[in-house]
Amino acid sequence: LREVYELRVEWGDCDPAGIVFYPNFYRWFDSAFQAMLARRGLSQRELARRYGILGTALADTGAAFKAPASYGDALSVESDIGRWTPRSFTIRYRIRRGEEILVEGFETRVFAVRNGSTGRLNGMPIPDEFRALFLEAETQA
Amino acid sequence: LREVYELRVEWGDCDPAGIVFYPNFYRWFDSAFQAMLARRGLSQRELARRYGILGTALADTGAAFKAPASYGDALSVESDIGRWTPRSFTIRYRIRRGEEILVEGFETRVFAVRNGSTGRLNGMPIPDEFRALFLEAETQA
Amino acid sequence: LREVYELRVEWGDCDPAGIVFYPNFYRWFDSAFQAMLARRGLSQRELARRYGILGTALADTGAAFKAPASYGDALSVESDIGRWTPRSFTIRYRIRRGEEILVEGFETRVFAVRNGSTGRLNGMPIPDEFRALFLEAETQA
Amino acid sequence: LREVYELRVEWGDCDPAGIVFYPNFYRWFDSAFQAMLARRGLSQRELARRYGILGTALADTGAAFKAPASYGDALSVESDIGRWTPRSFTIRYRIRRGEEILVEGFETRVFAVRNGSTGRLNGMPIPDEFRALFLEAETQA
Repeated sequence: LREVYELRVEWGDCDPAGIVFYPNFYRWFDSAFQAMLARRGLSQRELARRYGILGTALADTGAAFKAPASYGDALSVESDIGRWTPRSFTIRYRIRRGEEILVEGFETRVFAVRNGSTGRLNGMPIPDEFRALFLEAETQA
Repeated sequence: LREVYELRVEWGDCDPAGIVFYPNFYRWFDSAFQAMLARRGLSQRELARRYGILGTALADTGAAFKAPASYGDALSVESDIGRWTPRSFTIRYRIRRGEEILVEGFETRVFAVRNGSTGRLNGMPIPDEFRALFLEAETQA
Repeated sequence: LREVYELRVEWGDCDPAGIVFYPNFYRWFDSAFQAMLARRGLSQRELARRYGILGTALADTGAAFKAPASYGDALSVESDIGRWTPRSFTIRYRIRRGEEILVEGFETRVFAVRNGSTGRLNGMPIPDEFRALFLEAETQA
Repeated sequence: LREVYELRVEWGDCDPAGIVFYPNFYRWFDSAFQAMLARRGLSQRELARRYGILGTALADTGAAFKAPASYGDALSVESDIGRWTPRSFTIRYRIRRGEEILVEGFETRVFAVRNGSTGRLNGMPIPDEFRALFLEAETQA
């Protein structure tokens, strides 16, 4: 997992047990993904402009928790894109505190367009130029 | 999935695409679970008192998204406990808006105790009386 | 303060001290305001459609805390509009747990329109028909 | 306002209007305050250990909003302690994006101890050594 997003756990991220309230780990997955876009000159704003999509909506997500974190902890969210299909891609995440792995998870995302008549979200084929931005990084690594 | 927790999606739960920011669905899974405890006269406070646990910590979680929700939507989180092992239990969730299923997911939880010397969390056997509170409901249904 | 929005404090709303992490009280002010709109057949969606505004943006806010709340508590957010100016209105809030007042606060909101050339937000005069929806309620009470 | 806490606005911090959902600004005030503690070798954990307090609870808060922020924006939260009383202190905050001031606010905090018999929170005198940690910084500046 090549790319890294760094964060510090805040007081307000923790629950009465004194450890991170787990939906925040998914929030940090999302932040790490937006940082992957930013490193490629992209953002949700830019993707909407280029491709007319509502966003990179989630189809499937998951996370397994190995050890808890608490406020003050410095965490690293490592990520890469583990799988491409014609209409989706899956980002893998690993959250560490130093050498210790705390969380492993994934997000499967689609390019979501709003269906004008039904209002439902539909996927569209992932643009080649989008995929290329991620594969180049991999080839160079 | 027998038990139901009701909520209304709020403006602040939604992202710039106008749909629910997905970690909030996990937040509502957690709320639905705490409501399951409350229906049995339990709470995190009471579990800590009875069993000396730090909480019902998460080991594994996942959610698949079928359709988005937006502010003003009235949602129902249906839940039940789909699986028991000696040291964990898995809650299944289904979030609906009326008849439409929006999200399906799960949480696997453990009874977490703080290891006095290492500070790490360890699981303990799930108490029979805790399991019984859920199985009785099932038998009666 | 005539209108009431009800909520239950959730586990994830509380911090390691076991009490509500205070920004959540502002979140509930916002939810109470959206409920005031909903009672009048309005929503941010509808306000954007009718008046072309980006939203009812905040100009000023404040909250004083008298006593803490914790998970499981049933809270009532009482509200009314305490002050109108040509370009703003101030909502007053009082959060109670039964008879006990926990929080008193306010939000001053404007009708925000995006300035096409600068991208900045500007206020516009509050439409009379919007004001009327709130004043009628007061007259009838 | 001498001390600075830096953050980047995330996608999930913004609402359907595309701008920061305002309770998050209070969340960042809190983070900036915890960072002020950390710079002095303190934390909520350490304050609880030294003084037996539940935490540095909020008595009063406020924020005025001059201009909105959106995802991707790099923000600086400047802070200092503007006022001391025997049982409280008031932190002043200013949030900027580059030179532009977006938010100005404050938090008045107390050293909160749980009353053993009533369960209510009470304030206690602010310890001199706590105050000294902040005043020294000011004298040196």
